[in-house]
Parts: sequence; C-alpha cells; structure tokens
Amino acid sequence: MTDRIIAVSGGVTSPKGFAAASYAAGIKYKNREDMALIYSERPCTTAGVFTSNIVKAAPVVWDQQVVEKADYVRTVIVNSGIANACTGEEGMELCRATAKAAAEMTGDSPENVLVASTGVIGMQIPTDRIVHGTRELLKGRETTKEAGTKAARAIMTTDTHEKETAFTVTLNSGTVTIGGMCKGSGMIHPNMCTMLGFITTDAAISKTLLQQALSEIVKDTFNMISVDGDTSTNDTLVVLANGMAGNREINAEDEDYQTFKEALYQICEYLAKQMAGDGEGATALLEVTVQNAGTKEDAKTLAKSVVCSSLVKSMIYGHDANAGRIMCALGYSGVSFRPEYVDLYFVSKAGKIQIFRGGMAADYSEEEATKILSEPEVTIVVDMHEGNASAAAWGCDLTYDYVKINADYRS
Amino acid sequence: MTDRIIAVSGGVTSPKGFAAASYAAGIKYKNREDMALIYSERPCTTAGVFTSNIVKAAPVVWDQQVVEKADYVRTVIVNSGIANACTGEEGMELCRATAKAAAEMTGDSPENVLVASTGVIGMQIPTDRIVHGTRELLKGRETTKEAGTKAARAIMTTDTHEKETAFTVTLNSGTVTIGGMCKGSGMIHPNMCTMLGFITTDAAISKTLLQQALSEIVKDTFNMISVDGDTSTNDTLVVLANGMAGNREINAEDEDYQTFKEALYQICEYLAKQMAGDGEGATALLEVTVQNAGTKEDAKTLAKSVVCSSLVKSMIYGHDANAGRIMCALGYSGVSFRPEYVDLYFVSKAGKIQIFRGGMAADYSEEEATKILSEPEVTIVVDMHEGNASAAAWGCDLTYDYVKINADYRS
Repeated sequence: MTDRIIAVSGGVTSPKGFAAASYAAGIKYKNREDMALIYSERPCTTAGVFTSNIVKAAPVVWDQQVVEKADYVRTVIVNSGIANACTGEEGMELCRATAKAAAEMTGDSPENVLVASTGVIGMQIPTDRIVHGTRELLKGRETTKEAGTKAARAIMTTDTHEKETAFTVTLNSGTVTIGGMCKGSGMIHPNMCTMLGFITTDAAISKTLLQQALSEIVKDTFNMISVDGDTSTNDTLVVLANGMAGNREINAEDEDYQTFKEALYQICEYLAKQMAGDGEGATALLEVTVQNAGTKEDAKTLAKSVVCSSLVKSMIYGHDANAGRIMCALGYSGVSFRPEYVDLYFVSKAGKIQIFRGGMAADYSEEEATKILSEPEVTIVVDMHEGNASAAAWGCDLTYDYVKINADYRS
Repeated sequence: MTDRIIAVSGGVTSPKGFAAASYAAGIKYKNREDMALIYSERPCTTAGVFTSNIVKAAPVVWDQQVVEKADYVRTVIVNSGIANACTGEEGMELCRATAKAAAEMTGDSPENVLVASTGVIGMQIPTDRIVHGTRELLKGRETTKEAGTKAARAIMTTDTHEKETAFTVTLNSGTVTIGGMCKGSGMIHPNMCTMLGFITTDAAISKTLLQQALSEIVKDTFNMISVDGDTSTNDTLVVLANGMAGNREINAEDEDYQTFKEALYQICEYLAKQMAGDGEGATALLEVTVQNAGTKEDAKTLAKSVVCSSLVKSMIYGHDANAGRIMCALGYSGVSFRPEYVDLYFVSKAGKIQIFRGGMAADYSEEEATKILSEPEVTIVVDMHEGNASAAAWGCDLTYDYVKINADYRS
C-alpha cells in the first residue's frame, strides 16, 4: 500500500484548487506576518477534532458548530499572537465579525468560514485589525507553494520553523494530493487534538468517512505528543476536502479508503513529530516506543508517561543515561506490570544500547550511551514482556530555553 | 484546640527517649554525611504510608512488611546518594544486611528495624559501607537537638537545607511532643506519600489510630505537593510513637485523639510546604488555594492541576501575571465547571490583586501584579463559585536551575 503514497515538497496549497495567503495585521506581533488564509476554489467537505479542555477558546466553539452543521467550508482565517480564549461574548463576536468579513469577499455565508487563533490567553483581539487583515488575505491569495509556506510561517508563535508537508496518493480511481501545516511549540499535550493543524486535500470523500479517519488517526498521532503536559484551550485540527482530483468519491471502507487513511496518518504523524521536535526550547526530538505491553491502551499510557516525565526530559537534554527515571515513570503510569520483566534500550543514529535488563541496570558503556543520547533524535525503547501490544509517543527535552521562553512569554 | 499545639525549636530528637546520629559512609557522596539514624530508647508503635509507584525500591518493600507485621520498631537507618531501587534480590539482601547489623547492636531482631534510601535509581549500594555506617551510627547516637539536625541534613540529596520541626501538644491526660524531618527536592509528586519523612513522638497511641490519623492527613498534606510531577519509587513516611510522655494511651477517637491528629497535621503540612518550597531549583513556594468548588475532590484536583502546570510554574519564576495559563490548567484538570464563573487572585506579602473576574481578565495593574509575584511565597486563589468545598496544593516555580540540576544529576 505504502508505495502508493509519495511525499512531495509542499503544503496546504499542493492539492488542486487550494490557495493560501499571509498578512502582517499587527494583532500583537510587530514586524512579522501574523494572519493566514486557506481558501478552496470549490466548497469542501470538512472534518475536525478539537481540544478536550473545558476552557475552550471562542474560535474552537465557533469551528465545532461549523464542522458539525455547515453544508460546506471554503475559507479558514487564522491569527497568531492572541488566542481569543477567556474572552467571553466579545470573543465570540470577534469570530462572527471575522467570518462575516471573509464571507462578504467569497460570496458565502459566515457559517462557511472557519476561524482559528493561537497566542496569549485572556487578551481581546482588535476587531478592526482582524477584519482588515481578513480582507487583505483574501485579496492576496495565491495557489503557489510559497504562499502555503508563508501561511505556515504566519501561524507560528514560539515555533522556530514552519511545519508543512504533502503527499500524493494513488487510489484505484485516480491520484489525489494531501497537504498539511501546523504550529505547536508550547502548551502542547493534545487531548483529542493538537494546537493548530490544517490539512487540505483534493480527494472526494464523504464527510462521515473523513471524520472517522481523522478521529481514529488523531489518537495515535497528535494525541501521543507532549511538550509540557499542558493541554491548550485552542487545540484545533481540521481537514478540508474539495474533490477536485476527480476520483470516485470514497464512501465505503474499501481499498481506496484504507489507502487514503494511511496517507492521512502519515501526514498527521509527520506533523505531530515536527511539533514535538520543535517544542519550546527543545534541542532533541524524543520518541518513546513501548513494545510487548499487555494491551494497546497500556502501551500508550506507558509511552506517554515516560515522554511526559520532566526528569526523563532533563536527562535527554543532559545526554545522561539515568535510566532509573524511565523505570520510575513507567511505574507511576497507572499501568500494572512486573518491573523485573522490563528491558530498556536507547537508540539513535549513533547506535543502539541496552540500558536495563530484567528491571535492573545492564552492563553498558556510559560513553557509548552518552554518544547515542547526543543525537538530535533519540528513541527510548521499552520492552515490557507482558503481551503483544505496542505504541509510540513523541516529545522533546526540557531545557533552560523552555523556562526562559515561558518565564517571559507575554513581553 | 490550636492553643494546645505549640511549635518548638527541634526535630526528631525533641520527643522524650529519641536519639539520632549521622555519619559519612561514602555510599556515593564524598566529603559529606550520607547516613542517618533515628533510635528510640523504648519500643515504638509504628504507622507508615508508602509510594503508589509500581516500581518500589527495596527499602519500601522491606518497610511495608515491618510496619504491617513487626511487634515494634526501635531503629531507622537511612542513606542518601543511592535509592536502592531497581536493584532486584541484591537490593532486598542489602536491606536485610543493614537491619541485621542494626539489630545486633540494639538487641532486637532485623524485623524491628526500618531502612530507607534516596538517590540515584538503578545502582547497587556497597554492603560493607552501609553495614559499617550502621554500626557507627548506633555507636554515635545522641539525644541532642544538634544530632537531629545533622540527621536531617544527612538524608538530603539536592535539597538546599534540612527540614525539621517539632511541636508540644497539651492533651487532657498529659503533654506530649511530636518531631519530624523530611527530604524532598526532585521526583516529588507524592501519591500516598512523600520522598522520605520521619516523625517521632513520645505520645502513647494505638497502632490503629496512629495509622488512621496518618493516612487521612497525608491526603491533604504530602499528597498535595508537586515539584515535577514525578512520583518517586522511594516515597516513605513513617511515624514512631514510644509512649514515654506518660499520657493515657489514645485508643478512641476522643478529644485527645483530635488534638494529637491536629498536631500531626500541622507537622505534615509544615514539612510538605518546606519540601515544595525547596523543590529543585526553586526560587518561590507556590500555594494554590481553590475555594467554593463543587466537592472536596474537585477542589483538590483543580488545585493540583494548577500547581503542576509547567507554564504556571514558569510564569511564577518570571513574575509574569499570565493568568490565562491558570484558566487553561483548571480547564484540563478533568473537573467539570463553568469557566465564566471563575475568579482568580494573586496574593503574597506584597498584597492581593484580582486578575480574572467571571472567567475573563480583570482590570488590574501589571506593575502591582509583578510586585506581588516577586515575593518568595506566592498564593494563587481560585474561586470557582460552584459550591462550598476548598483545598490547597503546594509547589514551586520552574527555573533554569531545575533543568541544570536534572540534566546532570548523576555526576
């Protein structure tokens, strides 16, 4: 199946009929673009997953209604700098005003417009600036690769680089393209979804199957990353499918659905890992793979417990093979297991080394361990010897810069 | 009741009949004392609570058996530097050897000796050094205040100061004394208990009521602190009561029991807060008080969610009133509530200020907020307006030094 899925250079503008734009609206940042647009020539079928945080940002409330009720979506307006969370009725009014400004330009209704925000919680967004920005975005939209990349950059907050990718997918009934972009960095501990993620495709697919595929995939990708254990108020992931590739609409769980779903999975995993590796202040991407756990749920819980441990994260930053901390994090995960069965390994481009055998320190070279832990991508492999289930989780190291960035984020 | 409880200068040697000692056994640290003894002239009734981590250190397994089954306890042997966790049968054998060495000196059985360890996980403790150290401790035991303080210092790992306190308690049947010491600092997210805590008293009290009081108190004190969200493998809290004060034995839930329990609560809260404020790298003690929650359990969950948030902790370090992060942490706690009802305040010696009103930013002076947040003890007050229950949790700020200490802990 996977030889049907090919990575290509691009992002949200790669699928047919999608345009993007970016604009410096001065919402909060000076001297940089802070608004982005995704626009589809044709109306899109839409699916989405959103934060499980009880404190939901206004755009999350707005988008949940749109994804659930609107006949179609054509436009997504995003801003960075201010999250429009804890902003009450004024915040909801801002979503309406933004959607209305976009709809007037595109000939749709406000209900056909998605909005998304990321940044400081508790501040209001100036309505005039976002309405002006929305109009400029729609005027300046382009279908070029560059427009997509600039949009991916405009939605960044403390991210250090834009995150985008695209794949072409050969279905039995034609070739389709999927593109995506996201931003992450801090307050990353998705629970139903991630910070902001946008995926576009020219595939034709039913709304039910699009939502089903997305909801299933999110559990193993975006919901398996953590930067700091803080589940954001703004987590939003939406997929827009405009059908312009001309494939026969996917409306059954057939081979095309499986192929499409596999490609969507690869996009989501790629973007999720990009987000984990670019966690605030991070110097390394940390992957935790749990093998041979009793159940899939156990494997996921164990992997996430290790990837979230401040002590494990600090150890990765220090390139210090203090693997007892991994045992400790497994032990407080809530999963029942026999510690004396656990094997631990460190893996990176520099090699693979066994650190614990049967729940106790193995005989290994500290020098070699440090070498393996000094790579920019490090994997901790945990073999539970309890069953056949496995799972992976992704995060990053904990560094001085995480503290620096977050001790003074608002200024 | 509380005028019957008076704080006095002292620690574990304050109650009648208790001696302490410390010794430089060279377990792992060089040039400092790393072993401590608590010894009671008369046999003690004992209660204890231990880590909920599945990966339990050997001394935890040993002590659980002793507290449950032994007729009495007289001796506690503690070492810092190596945790004796993930050490298999060799680790259990070390506990036996330590207890045997102590018992030979005191005329008891090994089953009457408690052992406790704290430090690096996954390393073995040299048997000869700990056996030698145990003998030296018992030879050198003293009932002086200084001996208690030196013992409190010998059990420290990355703690910056010793933690001890004592109270006299006027019961109807006589005056008793309670003393305590503990160590904390990293891997602090107690779940049934804390790192290492030892409480002594000359009160006479039945084992059942001593255990009942301790188990209840721990839920509101040691289990409500967090430094880094990592529940240790070694959490141990034990109380030794030798009855030498001559009070009528407390064996019913009468007024004396309530007074004694209140004093035990004060000791536990004091030690827990000391531990939170001396969290690794901390510059401030953070208290989170949740008021008017729907249930006590809700109040505790909400308080703990805020005190554990890396973003809130970083904000305290930066003296930055980024209160949206508090709303966010309340929102992902798992408790159901109406965000639009929530009020937030910052309180310290420098004053009190309202930051959020009805779930939105209040009109406040940033300058004043920064002043309040710049104190070494800061309280976040959360008013849920949902019911009548309240709870407090304690933690500390997240600093460069936390990362520094934990990136290179073993060297």
